Amino acid sequence: MRVEIINTGTELMLGGTVNTHLAFIARELFPLGLRVQRQVTVPDGEAIRDAVRDTFGKADIVLVTGGLGPTTDDITRDIVAELLGLKLEHDEEIWRAIQERFARRGLKTNDRVKLQALRPREATVLWNPHGTAPGLHVPAIEERGTPHIFLLPGPPRELMPMVREKLVPILAALLPHGAQHEMRTFRVLGIGESVVEEAVGEALIAMGLEVGYCARPGEVDVRLIGAAPVLDRAATLVRERLGKWIFTSDERELPEVVVEKLTALGKTIATAESCTGGFIANQLTNVPGASKVFLAGYVTYANSAKTAALGVDAALIAQHGAVSGPVARQMAEGALEKSGATFALATTGIAGPDGGTAEKPVGTVFIALAECGAETIVLPEKFITDRETFKLRVSQTALDLLLRCLDGRDGVAKQTT
Amino acid sequence: MRVEIINTGTELMLGGTVNTHLAFIARELFPLGLRVQRQVTVPDGEAIRDAVRDTFGKADIVLVTGGLGPTTDDITRDIVAELLGLKLEHDEEIWRAIQERFARRGLKTNDRVKLQALRPREATVLWNPHGTAPGLHVPAIEERGTPHIFLLPGPPRELMPMVREKLVPILAALLPHGAQHEMRTFRVLGIGESVVEEAVGEALIAMGLEVGYCARPGEVDVRLIGAAPVLDRAATLVRERLGKWIFTSDERELPEVVVEKLTALGKTIATAESCTGGFIANQLTNVPGASKVFLAGYVTYANSAKTAALGVDAALIAQHGAVSGPVARQMAEGALEKSGATFALATTGIAGPDGGTAEKPVGTVFIALAECGAETIVLPEKFITDRETFKLRVSQTALDLLLRCLDGRDGVAKQTT
Repeated sequence: MRVEIINTGTELMLGGTVNTHLAFIARELFPLGLRVQRQVTVPDGEAIRDAVRDTFGKADIVLVTGGLGPTTDDITRDIVAELLGLKLEHDEEIWRAIQERFARRGLKTNDRVKLQALRPREATVLWNPHGTAPGLHVPAIEERGTPHIFLLPGPPRELMPMVREKLVPILAALLPHGAQHEMRTFRVLGIGESVVEEAVGEALIAMGLEVGYCARPGEVDVRLIGAAPVLDRAATLVRERLGKWIFTSDERELPEVVVEKLTALGKTIATAESCTGGFIANQLTNVPGASKVFLAGYVTYANSAKTAALGVDAALIAQHGAVSGPVARQMAEGALEKSGATFALATTGIAGPDGGTAEKPVGTVFIALAECGAETIVLPEKFITDRETFKLRVSQTALDLLLRCLDGRDGVAKQTT
Repeated sequence: MRVEIINTGTELMLGGTVNTHLAFIARELFPLGLRVQRQVTVPDGEAIRDAVRDTFGKADIVLVTGGLGPTTDDITRDIVAELLGLKLEHDEEIWRAIQERFARRGLKTNDRVKLQALRPREATVLWNPHGTAPGLHVPAIEERGTPHIFLLPGPPRELMPMVREKLVPILAALLPHGAQHEMRTFRVLGIGESVVEEAVGEALIAMGLEVGYCARPGEVDVRLIGAAPVLDRAATLVRERLGKWIFTSDERELPEVVVEKLTALGKTIATAESCTGGFIANQLTNVPGASKVFLAGYVTYANSAKTAALGVDAALIAQHGAVSGPVARQMAEGALEKSGATFALATTGIAGPDGGTAEKPVGTVFIALAECGAETIVLPEKFITDRETFKLRVSQTALDLLLRCLDGRDGVAKQTT
């Protein structure tokens, strides 16, 4: 089954919105053995017609997102009906659902809203509990060689549950039963893409696996696709050669791995952030259940806040500067004491674009890990990059430092005390 | 000039990475009067060939991102050279730049790295100070009807400066001089998409403008494209009808607007976050120069932290619960006092998926704004959504509350004291 995705929306072509649909849908379809072979983004309007027509004969399943709303640029429904020669009909059941939704929120419907109750004849409805416009499934028309076309809402909070709860079961029912390939991911922190490939690339390809590398700031993902028994042998090899750099062998993000590890061990964490400005706390509290392990975060941007909230010695700041190892250490130890957590992470650095000096240029940072009853670790680092990537890299390094400590892995090569 | 973008990368088709290239590039090209007419994502390999060939005769400028790295799945360079019948040659100048980059970082080059010094004959180099592989510009070949093809690196931190500093000047030089359309954006918070269109839609279209709406959680952007004098009249109309909901009439995000407003007024801010877990602090500190106005953030997730860090009365928590108006008020007032800031925002709520009760279901939240010398405002809200969108909606509402106060706009309809 060949899958293509068409994302519609002039706003996508103007740069106001990042298109997250492909990444999300691809991940949801993979367990069905389905791979997206092509994704196209076009503006609202006539380009949608060409994009849909382009898939005829090339794809078996076409997912079209966006353009189902109430405004005049929402014409996906009309275009698809016209292209397939299907009549658009008012669907009383959809209309009732829309009216009930509006009534629950104390809102009034209008004629524009009513357009969302139109359905191409032959299409079945994918109900949308999170928004007004339902999804629609127009089945493949064999004699005309048209694919299964699914019209899905654009807003991610409507799209995501519809894909998971409605689309995936329909696709599973359409699929012939057969051998499905599996995917394994190893996520590596602290070494570069070409080092990773040199270590494992040839051996993995010799095993007949499909191997992909994905480099992100500070991180490389190694993705293997193939039959399960080969993947097991490959996993052993990857662990032997890259083990100490692997922070997870599944799809979890680093903060998720950290929160789950702390939960399993019954440990708790506090953060004392200067240059990361709450990024680490936010990453950790994005993980459901974080409240079990995350006790408190102190975003001590101003020097006075470092002293007032964490008890950092003002004289120490005057002597070494706020961006220094000794201050990072006192921040971590202060957070540990104030919060009563098992661990505390602290960051102090210069995110830029301004604020650097000759001695401490933009990108300079000190990361500290304090642990109840153990020696505090202070890690000097330098990340020369943009402000947001800097925050990410510092957060990553801090969480990696903690995770290595929890895992008993070595590799904190640059550690100083 | 017709522009198309081809993003390559198997990792994009597997869902591990969100593709941010289109949004970024579209925004950078707009001021040149260039619109992206189509964007395609394909996996590494032969699909790249089809995607590039597909643009011949349809586009004048084709931007291909990704696949320039050192690993075996990086074959964009080879495919484009082959497709255009251009020889790939080792470029000694690129190779020297790569070697110097590696030497500076104390790394050794290997044969795979050297492949990145290959250049299709006729191509010019776009130097890449942020990564190893340079970009390449293969000019249009008139007799063969091929477009200008730009090969650009995939990692955003390499792509972004290359687009801004290298690509945009080359494109500007290629463009014929002529009337360029302008774009105006009005960003609206607190009313829905169909209400926005009902208020201004017909009138704007009657003016001959291209009108686009983009709905995001809690927010609607109205984008107008047309000639400058018409846009000026349209702006007056939009302000008259939607003024009190507009938080900005440019591309800035809400946290940027807040930080710049505070800076202009010489005011400062502190945050006391429970359910948002550092999200607000992180949003504010993403803005360069935030250190001038953001003094301190307290992420008081545990009740003990609310008491210890902010002085919230433990008896008050016992009486009303941590998620309550009185606790939100004490959090904000505590943050104001501890930090010495002009304003303090506090949030306490139930982000979910767990932790809700019959009386206080998931989505319940109290937001407080304390101001030095003024009455504290407490705003009860309910956002029934996923955990991360919940944090975003609460943050947005909190920052909007502050901005309305700074702007002297009304509209805090649900305000209670």
